[in-house]
Amino acid sequence: MVSVILTVTLNPALDVTYRVEELQHGHVHRVDRVSIRAGGKGINVARVLAALGERVLATGLVGGPTGDAVLAELSVPHDFARISGENRRTVTVWSTMDCRATLFAERGPTVGAAEWSTFVGGFERLASVAEIVVLAGSLPPGLPDSAYAELIVRSPAPVILDTAAEPLRRGLAAHPAMITPNADELAAAIGSDAADLAEACRELAVPVAFTLGPAGAVLSTPAGSWSARPPSTIRGKATGPGNPTGTNNTISADDAFTAALARGMARRTDPQTLLADAVALSTASVVAPATGDFDPVTYERLRRTVVVRRL
Amino acid sequence: MVSVILTVTLNPALDVTYRVEELQHGHVHRVDRVSIRAGGKGINVARVLAALGERVLATGLVGGPTGDAVLAELSVPHDFARISGENRRTVTVWSTMDCRATLFAERGPTVGAAEWSTFVGGFERLASVAEIVVLAGSLPPGLPDSAYAELIVRSPAPVILDTAAEPLRRGLAAHPAMITPNADELAAAIGSDAADLAEACRELAVPVAFTLGPAGAVLSTPAGSWSARPPSTIRGKATGPGNPTGTNNTISADDAFTAALARGMARRTDPQTLLADAVALSTASVVAPATGDFDPVTYERLRRTVVVRRL
Repeated sequence: MVSVILTVTLNPALDVTYRVEELQHGHVHRVDRVSIRAGGKGINVARVLAALGERVLATGLVGGPTGDAVLAELSVPHDFARISGENRRTVTVWSTMDCRATLFAERGPTVGAAEWSTFVGGFERLASVAEIVVLAGSLPPGLPDSAYAELIVRSPAPVILDTAAEPLRRGLAAHPAMITPNADELAAAIGSDAADLAEACRELAVPVAFTLGPAGAVLSTPAGSWSARPPSTIRGKATGPGNPTGTNNTISADDAFTAALARGMARRTDPQTLLADAVALSTASVVAPATGDFDPVTYERLRRTVVVRRL
Repeated sequence: MVSVILTVTLNPALDVTYRVEELQHGHVHRVDRVSIRAGGKGINVARVLAALGERVLATGLVGGPTGDAVLAELSVPHDFARISGENRRTVTVWSTMDCRATLFAERGPTVGAAEWSTFVGGFERLASVAEIVVLAGSLPPGLPDSAYAELIVRSPAPVILDTAAEPLRRGLAAHPAMITPNADELAAAIGSDAADLAEACRELAVPVAFTLGPAGAVLSTPAGSWSARPPSTIRGKATGPGNPTGTNNTISADDAFTAALARGMARRTDPQTLLADAVALSTASVVAPATGDFDPVTYERLRRTVVVRRL
């Protein structure tokens, strides 16, 4: 049987980008260039995996005309459940004068209990044929903080959990195969020293991987901890206007990082290679023209040059 | 036969307002409050007229899911023509910290020649039962600058033209019953002295009415010119977050001004009363909770206290 990676996006978005010459607070801006893309972390992860040639299936919750637009724009295989509410939009204003992105993210639709039950049933069926499941992104209003924990408990396949705050803490208790917390959150709780972070992660008894932006990433498992960093020549590369998901591209890089972890885990790659590959891919995504893409030449070069060391 | 005022909105919009605490350039903003409203100058004028108890019919061009949303939100009688393109959105970011609105306006769908022909035929039928026609707002891409001129020529009913730039200049040559140009544009061409403006308007041989913001308004006809201003106590009143159409509320006030002119012309009101009423209504709209609304108590008080003088 061919392995499939299942990605779950419970709060997808239609990501709209307005390109303006200069964002001026209190002014009227005529927007001549509007670009639209299906968004949400799970969808971005699926897009990266599809670009890598992996067999992937995207699921989640869609509703309303915006949900239709998300599906119409989504180029990867998908099987989303319908909800009565309408999906959210995000609006990114890209100011060409100073190359800065300002993002406005709606919260998303309110999901009902019956809709959630229906989704969970469908999820179990889809996960039963998956090699790896990726749960990624925020929860829409109406879902309890335990939503990801419930999916982890129900999933027949190992789960990578890529979320934050209470849904992450609740999910952790359900023992996912790996978590990819936000480094800023971790640092706020533990500090920013890689060895300290690795030690704290080991105590969680769940493998943890997180990026440190241009400084690389850390992977901590019960068997050991490693850090990896790209060669200095690639670090701190400026980002372009085609990649405006976040204010500084870390969202896109994080999604590529998670995608690489999912692929590596599906292939049972050893930890050092897994981490090196994830750092190479996330770094290559920073120089890509759009969210969910990556630069394949940079990726291949970095795979061979990323330096991994044991902590 | 009961008189109907027909308003035409060729480039309607779904006006979306995001309320944020503070707009920070280059940052991510979580938007907890999203409000949605059908927009476009003609639609706003129709809404004011309906609130005044006038019989009104709104027409124009709608398409796509955003067009559906515009119609769903539109509470006045309407008969719009369908186009294959999708209507635009405007996004207003209302910063509660400093009470400032930052507006992003998409350009709108590209309208095809066949779609335009179909609309013009329908317009002639609707205008044949109208007492007054109001053509208001910008043109969507694909329509020639002469689009309003063509409608003026075809209309069996007198037309008020409320637009700007080349569509206004072309429309003027088709002899509408009245134009309501933007005072800033007029001032840039002629200067800001009310008497100078009135003199220039008389030379156009078409009645002209325009607002000067809190300073009142001017009406110039071949029979004479008048200026009117509200009592000083009402001028310069601060605007609230419920009325974020423009950056300083002049769009809403202008739409109320045009609505009052349309009603007065349908009733063949004398020029001084017409101008006083329009100033009263536009001033009352500035203190209203939402675009297209007005404060009826302020309106009634101002109708009696607006000072009109001949220029």
